[in-house]
Amino acid sequence: MVLRFALMIDPVASLEKGGDLRSTLRVIDPSAPALELGDLSAQRGDGVFESIGVVDGHPHEVGPHLERLAHSASLCDLPAPDLAQWRAAIQRVSAEAGPGESVIKLILSRGIEGGAIPTAWVTLATAPDNSAARRDGVRVVTLDRGYPLDVPARAPWLLLGAKTLSYGVNMAAIREAKRRGADDAVFVTTDGFLLEAPTASLLLRIDGRFVTPSPSAGILHGTTQLSVFAHLGQRGFETGYENVPVGDLERADAAWLLSSVRLAAPISAVDGRAVAVDRGLTDELNTFLLGRRD
Amino acid sequence: MVLRFALMIDPVASLEKGGDLRSTLRVIDPSAPALELGDLSAQRGDGVFESIGVVDGHPHEVGPHLERLAHSASLCDLPAPDLAQWRAAIQRVSAEAGPGESVIKLILSRGIEGGAIPTAWVTLATAPDNSAARRDGVRVVTLDRGYPLDVPARAPWLLLGAKTLSYGVNMAAIREAKRRGADDAVFVTTDGFLLEAPTASLLLRIDGRFVTPSPSAGILHGTTQLSVFAHLGQRGFETGYENVPVGDLERADAAWLLSSVRLAAPISAVDGRAVAVDRGLTDELNTFLLGRRD
Repeated sequence: MVLRFALMIDPVASLEKGGDLRSTLRVIDPSAPALELGDLSAQRGDGVFESIGVVDGHPHEVGPHLERLAHSASLCDLPAPDLAQWRAAIQRVSAEAGPGESVIKLILSRGIEGGAIPTAWVTLATAPDNSAARRDGVRVVTLDRGYPLDVPARAPWLLLGAKTLSYGVNMAAIREAKRRGADDAVFVTTDGFLLEAPTASLLLRIDGRFVTPSPSAGILHGTTQLSVFAHLGQRGFETGYENVPVGDLERADAAWLLSSVRLAAPISAVDGRAVAVDRGLTDELNTFLLGRRD
Repeated sequence: MVLRFALMIDPVASLEKGGDLRSTLRVIDPSAPALELGDLSAQRGDGVFESIGVVDGHPHEVGPHLERLAHSASLCDLPAPDLAQWRAAIQRVSAEAGPGESVIKLILSRGIEGGAIPTAWVTLATAPDNSAARRDGVRVVTLDRGYPLDVPARAPWLLLGAKTLSYGVNMAAIREAKRRGADDAVFVTTDGFLLEAPTASLLLRIDGRFVTPSPSAGILHGTTQLSVFAHLGQRGFETGYENVPVGDLERADAAWLLSSVRLAAPISAVDGRAVAVDRGLTDELNTFLLGRRD
């Protein structure tokens, strides 16, 4: 994704300048050098981020994204982000988005090595065309995430519930999926439970009920999944978080990957075997997710 | 660490310009903006790196570091680095090092998102003063790395044998160790075997024999550890790679963390219990490691 607009956030100024948050934002050329080599984002993937879907200039689920940014920062012992400042930055960047679908990324890095001040920035890019994934679905392969279900709770230093910049494994899993002729991966635990996709949450409909693997298993609590649960609840469907055995992915009536930019992508194959796609409900979910819903 | 000198490497030019490798290196101001926000090193920790110890202008173990850089790049499906070009860059940067101890870092990023060209750079910084750690040792805590011993071989997408820029967990483990009143961490598997420290290899002397956890367990093959094994072998000691149970860390006659910049740091305590330090051998190892040995 080519960046179309970017601004740096001054996290120290936010404390000093109080109300005038716009003056703590600095618009920069998104294709010019902006980060020092010593920045710990680039040196060690040491920071946290969020990707926000924007439709016709309206950023979706800003509140849940900011809450999750703060949660990730806390898990990583980063200074708490000033959410009013980040909200002002999202507003400023959204004004540049124009019609169609875009992506806003929020990045909070630990800053320059040896310093004590985070580096923070927000970018805007045009979203890729996800219409084929939304319509025809994505073929997934299940990939071992390497840990059993009980590890995240007892080993918080593994940062498994934080959306960190250390996304090398997530990217490698997608490459492995493509190597196997699929489009995306679904991580599973060593003891046989479903987790999440490298950049999406998993939603299954089993016997008419909608289920997502429990975030206590060291996975991200999906902002799009939260919106979909609220929507399904309003329509009278039962929703819930559970520890879901791997076999349920093929046993489900239907399953989706949910994420902020691709939105609801139905799963069309699991490990090379075709599975049922519910086109009607998928279209309905994406219409909801593309609409002005907050 | 404050960067004192830096240069960018042009990986495309290395192919085009053939012999004239110096012209593919560009000296830059190490404290000026140098990376675009779209660089995948900063966005996703997507790249690989090496840290080389430099003593009085001489970079140590350049060959093994370059081999490991190439190995990490291969595990991450990055283009193979032109090692002659990187060697020229190390030579150029070493010339700036001056007396005393320095650190050269090599970084190979996947490049700007959406592009196909890696970003690559080399930096120089003054090494921190490690004399206390070398003399008095480091107190370690054992921390669960979350996976059993057999996972790395069957799940290569976890990149466990690659030195990637996704080092968030390594940094979090060191913070956890400090929170517990220690100096550093030693990762262990869920099934009770020793692995490595977040930024160092582990060496144990057990019944007069020197043992390091086997690199097949998804840990880095330490360049300093390789040098120490060669040195110990020349002195007539037996050395070997093994799957080492966690209990051996306290049972050992002595144990060390080995790394390129801190060199041999004896372990002085494990999970709050003091363990024996062999000061004589430690001094001898550090004298060897600080000397002109290649």
